[in-house]
Amino acid sequence: MTYCLAIRVDKGLVFCADSRTNAGIDNVNSYSKMHRFAPGPGRHFTLLSSGNLATTQAVVKKLRDDIKRAAAPNLQSVTSLEEAVDYVGMTSAAVQRQQAERDISTTGFEATFIFGGQIAEHKPEIFLVYPQGNYIHESREHPFLQVGEIKYGKPILDRVIVPALDLERAARCALVSMNSTVRSNATVGPPIDLLIQRANVFDGGRFLHLSEDDPFLQAVSRQWSAGLFQALEGLPPFDWEGREETPASTGHIYPFPPTP
Amino acid sequence: MTYCLAIRVDKGLVFCADSRTNAGIDNVNSYSKMHRFAPGPGRHFTLLSSGNLATTQAVVKKLRDDIKRAAAPNLQSVTSLEEAVDYVGMTSAAVQRQQAERDISTTGFEATFIFGGQIAEHKPEIFLVYPQGNYIHESREHPFLQVGEIKYGKPILDRVIVPALDLERAARCALVSMNSTVRSNATVGPPIDLLIQRANVFDGGRFLHLSEDDPFLQAVSRQWSAGLFQALEGLPPFDWEGREETPASTGHIYPFPPTP
Repeated sequence: MTYCLAIRVDKGLVFCADSRTNAGIDNVNSYSKMHRFAPGPGRHFTLLSSGNLATTQAVVKKLRDDIKRAAAPNLQSVTSLEEAVDYVGMTSAAVQRQQAERDISTTGFEATFIFGGQIAEHKPEIFLVYPQGNYIHESREHPFLQVGEIKYGKPILDRVIVPALDLERAARCALVSMNSTVRSNATVGPPIDLLIQRANVFDGGRFLHLSEDDPFLQAVSRQWSAGLFQALEGLPPFDWEGREETPASTGHIYPFPPTP
Repeated sequence: MTYCLAIRVDKGLVFCADSRTNAGIDNVNSYSKMHRFAPGPGRHFTLLSSGNLATTQAVVKKLRDDIKRAAAPNLQSVTSLEEAVDYVGMTSAAVQRQQAERDISTTGFEATFIFGGQIAEHKPEIFLVYPQGNYIHESREHPFLQVGEIKYGKPILDRVIVPALDLERAARCALVSMNSTVRSNATVGPPIDLLIQRANVFDGGRFLHLSEDDPFLQAVSRQWSAGLFQALEGLPPFDWEGREETPASTGHIYPFPPTP
């Protein structure tokens, strides 16, 4: 499996991806799922991939080749993010169709992507590209997108991510969301790729490639655990706590049901 | 869907269950999924149910009827938790087989249970009963069991629950795990049932039935969100923070890949 996420806040974009791939549980490998494109001044794009690895590699290769060959459209020629994601979706659907035609079995060639970036004078945007080639963008009420093993890391994003959050806090939140998923599910694993791109700055952004034993990643995990214990300590006590000897009888406590 | 969990710590047991049931997304109801049995002095059992509602209701009814009729075995006659869970698994499998035989279609009658409790002079125990009627118990490395929508609420349990944790902290952690799941997934919903049973005490335990607008549940949710923000603030800063004007060049930061 895979876990990738992207966050759009007012100040820019955050992308985060794990690197574990598997073709059966006894065939586990590491491949980067974050693909960065800077096909010209004043524009950059990032593609996070999940699904069939042959499909995602073919899609990435096609996107890079199209720039080299100056095919129309390509990531250098597109004039908006909408045009770019439409081209990515079309490419993904075409690659899957081609592989399915070649197949004599019923293999699943599906792939899902998160695609985002910025073209100068437009706003940064992020999209989730479905295997069918269609796509959705994030919203102000839900300013993040996830693919793969999304459930473990969703509660923290649901509680914390709002458009006004600053970029580094959003990036730390993405790392925590990823770290929690890695801890709870062995099919998602390091190295972790993290990319932080400030809006309207086209220097490639801050890119971190964090291996399992990276001291920063370990410090994040350790301090997050400590923070969770503190958060638990901050929760309201039950009615009866601190008066353990008194009988249980508050508005919250219901009598035991009669024995049948 | 459903989310139920049980925790076994040294000092006792915690059970927690949501109440949302649905037969299609346009047929949503509330049914308690926590069933408590106190069929005699010095023994109590709790069953948390997920899966086909007709199956789980039939299983609960059979368990209660068997006590009334003094059938052998029943929850009053069993002499160990192992014997009790074996009887629950057998009953569940028999109910499913009966319903499948009656069916002219290929309906899914499966149900999964968490079953636990204590019989005096034995230790408290919890089990996960599969639809096949077989079961597993928790371990000291993994002292909790979950059924249903388990992923959202697993990271907090993975980080916090150890056998030495005291009972009320474990119960608050269960509430947080449940509350996070309710927030992130509309198919899991209040009222929330929470039961806390101290080891070797057979008074029925502390039972809380928390509706959506329960002030205690709302305070837990609010203070947990505040605690998460604080935990995020406690995370280590990125290398470049606090020196935003200097160029990005630390051991963590890799150059942007060359334009293709």
